[in-house]
Amino acid sequence: MIIVTAFFYIYVMISQAEIKKIRSLHKNKGRSQHQCFIIEGIRAVEDILGSSLDVLDVFVVKGGDSLTPGYKSFREISEKEMKSISALNSPPGILAVVKIPPPGNINPEQNLILLDGIKDPGNMGTIIRTAHWFGVNQVVCSTDSVDIYNPKVVQATMGSIGYVSMFTDELSDFLDKYSKEYSFAGLMMEGRQLKDVEFSKDSGIALIVGSEAFGIREEVEKRLDVSVTIPAFHSQNKPESLNASIAASIAIYHFYGTE
Amino acid sequence: MIIVTAFFYIYVMISQAEIKKIRSLHKNKGRSQHQCFIIEGIRAVEDILGSSLDVLDVFVVKGGDSLTPGYKSFREISEKEMKSISALNSPPGILAVVKIPPPGNINPEQNLILLDGIKDPGNMGTIIRTAHWFGVNQVVCSTDSVDIYNPKVVQATMGSIGYVSMFTDELSDFLDKYSKEYSFAGLMMEGRQLKDVEFSKDSGIALIVGSEAFGIREEVEKRLDVSVTIPAFHSQNKPESLNASIAASIAIYHFYGTE
Repeated sequence: MIIVTAFFYIYVMISQAEIKKIRSLHKNKGRSQHQCFIIEGIRAVEDILGSSLDVLDVFVVKGGDSLTPGYKSFREISEKEMKSISALNSPPGILAVVKIPPPGNINPEQNLILLDGIKDPGNMGTIIRTAHWFGVNQVVCSTDSVDIYNPKVVQATMGSIGYVSMFTDELSDFLDKYSKEYSFAGLMMEGRQLKDVEFSKDSGIALIVGSEAFGIREEVEKRLDVSVTIPAFHSQNKPESLNASIAASIAIYHFYGTE
Repeated sequence: MIIVTAFFYIYVMISQAEIKKIRSLHKNKGRSQHQCFIIEGIRAVEDILGSSLDVLDVFVVKGGDSLTPGYKSFREISEKEMKSISALNSPPGILAVVKIPPPGNINPEQNLILLDGIKDPGNMGTIIRTAHWFGVNQVVCSTDSVDIYNPKVVQATMGSIGYVSMFTDELSDFLDKYSKEYSFAGLMMEGRQLKDVEFSKDSGIALIVGSEAFGIREEVEKRLDVSVTIPAFHSQNKPESLNASIAASIAIYHFYGTE
C-alpha cells in the first residue's frame, strides 16, 4: 500500500500540461508566451539559484545526482519525464524553469558589450560567460541576434546568464543614444591593432562584436569610435579567421581584463 | 542508353568497400589501421589541398556546391552515399580523405603549445585554429588527449590542421628533454597573473593547457618554469571558470600575439 502511494505521489509531480508548457520553452514562441526559460545541470542551476533571477521550479530525476544543501524545494520526476522536458540529448537530470527578467535600464557607469547579429548560440553563450568572468555585466544584442534565452545560449553561459543584464535593441540607435557615455570599439577584419588601442578612464568601454558571417553592419560601423583588429601572424598560409567567440574573448580580455 | 551509362558511371564511383573504409575513419581504430582521416566542407578541403598534407580523395555530391578551380580531380557521389561516409549530421557535400602525416621532429627554434589531457574535440580543434592564427605551428598532445584526427577535432580546426605540426608524447618526458630550449608556462587556476608574465627572447615559449576537468597533471606541473592564471574580476559572484579553449586562446594571444 505504501508503495502504491509513493508511486502515485511521483506520478502526479508533473502533469502533461506542464510537460507541454516546458517543452514549448525550447522555442522562441513558447518563451515569449510564458516569459520563462529553462536551464539544466547541477552547477548551472545552482548558479541561477544564487542569482537574483526568479526560479519558478526545479525538477530533479528521482535517484539521480545528489543534491547540495542549497536546494530548499524541488520536484522529483522520472527519467522519462525529464527526457521529455529537457532540451539536451543527454539530460543531466536537473532542470530549472526561470522567469525572464523584466527589461532593466542600462547603467552608463558600467562597461558593456554589444553583439551585432550573433547567430550561433554557443558563441553568444560563451561571450556572455567570458564577459561575466571579466566583470562586464551588461550585454546588448541586436534584434536579429539569436534569442538570449535559447536553451543552447543559456547552457553555454554556464550560469553566467544569471549575473549579466541582457538587453535587446537596435544597435545604431543605441550608439546614438550613448555616444557620450561610451567609447565604441568595433572588432573588425581591418582596423587598428587591438594591442595598440587603449581608452581613457573618462568614458565607459563598449566593445562591439559582429556576426560570424557578415561582421558589424554598416550603420553601426560608421558610428564607431575606433575599429580594432586582431592580426594574424602572416605566414605563407594565412588562416581563414578566428572563431567569433575566441576573437571576442581576446578583445574582452584586452579591454576589460588587463587593467 | 546514354542515361543508363551515366547512371552506371556515377554508381561505380564509390564502392561499398570504400564506403565501409571511410566510415571506419570516424573511429580511432579505423584511422590507426588505415592511417587516414577525413575533413569536410569546401573551405576546409581547399585549405587542406593547399597544405603539404597528402589528399588521397575528394568526394563531392553531384549537383552540390560549385567548385573552385583549385580542384584538379574529384569524385562525384550521390547525396545518399555522402550521408553514409560523412561524420556530420548535415554533410556539407564535400569530403576529403587525407593521409595522416608521418611523425616529424620538433623544431626547437619555433614556439609550441602543449595540451595536457584535453578531452573535448571542439576545444582541441579551436586551440589548434587559434595557434595557427598566431603563428604557432607545433602542438604537442599528451597520450591521453582526444585523438588529433577525430573528425570533430579536424572540423573545429577549420583547415588549420594542415598547417600545424601535431605531436603526441608523454608531456613530463617532453619537458625534461626540452628544458633548455623552451620556457614552460602552465595555465593554472592559480599562479602569476598572465598580464605580468613575459619571457626573454633567449628561449622559445611553450604554453601548456590542462584538461577541462583536472587541469595540468602534477608531474607536468612540477616541471613548469612558471604557473600563469587569468584572474576573474572579483564581483560578489565569481563565475565558475572560463571555457578551456577561451582561456587557452587568451594565453596564446598574450604570449604569441602581442609582440
